[in-house]
Amino acid sequence: MSKEIGITVKKNEDFSEWYTQVVIKAQLTDYAPVKGLIVLRPYGYSIWEFLKSSIDQKLKATGHENGFLPVLIPESLLSKEATHFAGFTPEVFWVTHSGDTEVGDRLALRPTSETLAYSMYSKWIKSWRDLPVKINFWNSALRAEIKSTKPFLRTSEFLWQEGHTVHATKEEAKEEVMTILDIYRKTVEEELAIPVIIGKKSEKEKFVGAVYTTTMESIMPDGKALQMGTSHFLGQNFSKPFDVKFLDKQNVETYAWQTSWGVSWRLIGALIMVHGDDKGLVLPPRVAPIQAVIIPIYSSQSDKDAVLKKANEIKDTLLKKSLRIHVDSRDEFTPGYKFNDWEMKGVPLRIEIGPKDMAKNKVVLVRRDNLKKSDLFFENIEEGIVKALDEIQADLFGKARKLLNDRIKNVADFDRFKKEIENGMFLIAPWCGDQKCEETIKEDTGADIRVIPFDAKTSNSSCIVCGTPSKSDAMFARGY
Amino acid sequence: MSKEIGITVKKNEDFSEWYTQVVIKAQLTDYAPVKGLIVLRPYGYSIWEFLKSSIDQKLKATGHENGFLPVLIPESLLSKEATHFAGFTPEVFWVTHSGDTEVGDRLALRPTSETLAYSMYSKWIKSWRDLPVKINFWNSALRAEIKSTKPFLRTSEFLWQEGHTVHATKEEAKEEVMTILDIYRKTVEEELAIPVIIGKKSEKEKFVGAVYTTTMESIMPDGKALQMGTSHFLGQNFSKPFDVKFLDKQNVETYAWQTSWGVSWRLIGALIMVHGDDKGLVLPPRVAPIQAVIIPIYSSQSDKDAVLKKANEIKDTLLKKSLRIHVDSRDEFTPGYKFNDWEMKGVPLRIEIGPKDMAKNKVVLVRRDNLKKSDLFFENIEEGIVKALDEIQADLFGKARKLLNDRIKNVADFDRFKKEIENGMFLIAPWCGDQKCEETIKEDTGADIRVIPFDAKTSNSSCIVCGTPSKSDAMFARGY
Repeated sequence: MSKEIGITVKKNEDFSEWYTQVVIKAQLTDYAPVKGLIVLRPYGYSIWEFLKSSIDQKLKATGHENGFLPVLIPESLLSKEATHFAGFTPEVFWVTHSGDTEVGDRLALRPTSETLAYSMYSKWIKSWRDLPVKINFWNSALRAEIKSTKPFLRTSEFLWQEGHTVHATKEEAKEEVMTILDIYRKTVEEELAIPVIIGKKSEKEKFVGAVYTTTMESIMPDGKALQMGTSHFLGQNFSKPFDVKFLDKQNVETYAWQTSWGVSWRLIGALIMVHGDDKGLVLPPRVAPIQAVIIPIYSSQSDKDAVLKKANEIKDTLLKKSLRIHVDSRDEFTPGYKFNDWEMKGVPLRIEIGPKDMAKNKVVLVRRDNLKKSDLFFENIEEGIVKALDEIQADLFGKARKLLNDRIKNVADFDRFKKEIENGMFLIAPWCGDQKCEETIKEDTGADIRVIPFDAKTSNSSCIVCGTPSKSDAMFARGY
Repeated sequence: MSKEIGITVKKNEDFSEWYTQVVIKAQLTDYAPVKGLIVLRPYGYSIWEFLKSSIDQKLKATGHENGFLPVLIPESLLSKEATHFAGFTPEVFWVTHSGDTEVGDRLALRPTSETLAYSMYSKWIKSWRDLPVKINFWNSALRAEIKSTKPFLRTSEFLWQEGHTVHATKEEAKEEVMTILDIYRKTVEEELAIPVIIGKKSEKEKFVGAVYTTTMESIMPDGKALQMGTSHFLGQNFSKPFDVKFLDKQNVETYAWQTSWGVSWRLIGALIMVHGDDKGLVLPPRVAPIQAVIIPIYSSQSDKDAVLKKANEIKDTLLKKSLRIHVDSRDEFTPGYKFNDWEMKGVPLRIEIGPKDMAKNKVVLVRRDNLKKSDLFFENIEEGIVKALDEIQADLFGKARKLLNDRIKNVADFDRFKKEIENGMFLIAPWCGDQKCEETIKEDTGADIRVIPFDAKTSNSSCIVCGTPSKSDAMFARGY
């Protein structure tokens, strides 16, 4: 493979350039003509489809349904919840004309749909019989990015899902927040093989308009933390301005309790950063569009016929097991070129088969994650492939777990904190709960509170900034 | 059921009002705050999901892949193919600002994505090895509607899929156009139980920018024809301005051959109009979110326990057959209310079960389409339900086929034509092929050429307008 085609920088030497090369050269994505916007090529979209299907199944199993909301929201509606509006307005795209006609009330392209969804919910919900309402929307959100953009991580339009629920009681809404966070955590850990830390955001970092925000966070190999999904308890902050109320069983009119939550294609960005290596993408088998690629090796025409026949037999056998298998029978490329090509694309397993293998009734298996080779006899092909894919999935998670754990450090004083932040660490430190200390940390080090873990200690240590008693430990890092 | 809750007009007395009541009261959709925009409620979205999944499977089985394109297209790009741009520009929504900043090149909200897709394809395609490219996009399109809008039929944003393919040869592209039209026809006939007529559009009615457009059409109960899906042969009309070219096997640079095609949620509109009746929606089982609803009937608590237990047993048995079953165990409504409620929502089968049925080891089955009742014994429950659903699907198609056939008439002179158009007929008439005669017909009668059927006669009759020899028969109707 020529240098131009392969990845030309090392992951630990120029992480940012490495990332960009991987997303483009593995054909996941490309830049659209408008700055800050990307397209998804089929290989990238296919990963999104697996992720989407996994989340969608879990949402349906817990009583959620899907709906559709238009992308245009009138300014008057968007501005109804003031804090929320103030948070989004600098990055809103505005439609001012249709054809040559000026529209009266300007139309925002959806930065998120709380306001639109709840104006509808207010019409649909009359009585306790109509509750709960648990609707999810698979769509895209638009937020004009002024900072430098990065495929999957920061773009002015991104694919996501946003869920919006309404409940009769506070308790039920709070439970919903946790049900969703757990669905997110499971999906990311089990499908994407990325361990996460779950907990709450600080007041400063919560979603604009929420009572509180729960989050799942991880840290990337460059030492920057990534927010990977959030689930918000909205209390009655939106139900009051949007008039989402119901007659309860005692016939008393009551404002409802609400939640909203979302994950985006940012998860694909995390996947690339956490598992990728100098050769390119490394995909966990559960979300790999192709789980194993079969490379037939031959020089003579008679070898070719025999090898291709066997390769297709193996493919058919594995397809019956619902595995995703591709035979690369392109004549115009050498096996060596193909090895590199599929390695760059992160296909979890390579199955090599040539005349010598055929003579021994075996194939050669090569794992993408550790490049280890092994022989696999024809008679064991099904269970051998399934086992290898399971092992790769588990090993990727184990490796990522170790990477995360190695980054996490407890610090008790601010000097140590400043030093470790420079090393790209995910720091657990005691914090008094005061926003001023949080801001001091941000100013002095660039680090935010990423998450206050649910299992954080509330020991009697002292805040690393002001020295007053700590309310609880918080986790700090610089972020994406 | 109170009048307010049920449908208050008859389908054949006020078709337009009937339609509006059905889409709103069956909770398929609702009006968004911006005029011309609608939301999909879960019941409506679920129908869309079945339709989507059916098309998606067929597209994947024929080698198509999915991708994502952003909704924003720069004006400079959209205007690159002049005819195309002129066709869409009066209905384009324009973004002029992001936050407080004016954007330079105005951004169009995607009315369709030919221009954006092909600017990307031109980067991705270098050689014959990169062909064919067959990518589909599930998204929404935005076209500001100035005429009166109608849920599913005419809205300023609509859900659809748009496919965009690139081929090395003209023949292959033409074949693709037909492959897709056949996928559409199969889906509409087999899933939605609506028969269609396939053929070509006239030059006047073709897609702006296409060489020719193929279409599938049907006629609705109000005598207006509905275009239900189109598949376009674009020739090199876009590949030239967008520079979509490749080195062929002889290393000669060649402009590629292209197609584009789409169906939208308009198909749900067709489904409602064709099958619905005075009681509301009638859903074909294949796309019904709930295929059978079980209504437990009881008066005493002991009856309730026994009946609900059996109802849930039946449900579990049927769920194992992958049927979509719901037990309506709401205590606050009478069985009669529930019957009406589910009839309005078009659930294909109702299963009634009460103590008297239990004593006889049977349930009562009620078909939504013809309201016929029959007994079904517990021991035959699985095959009985499956058989009933199959029969409903087939009968709905048969009934729709008859409705269509009854509307189709051959006419040979213009006076007769004018009279029959007033009766809401779908007229087959000889046409000389001249756009002037087509325009005369439109002006005098309001009817367009909907489709020139692939199996149209090219007999030696005379054009109904000018009397010169007919090129071929065409099918005329007033349209949506």
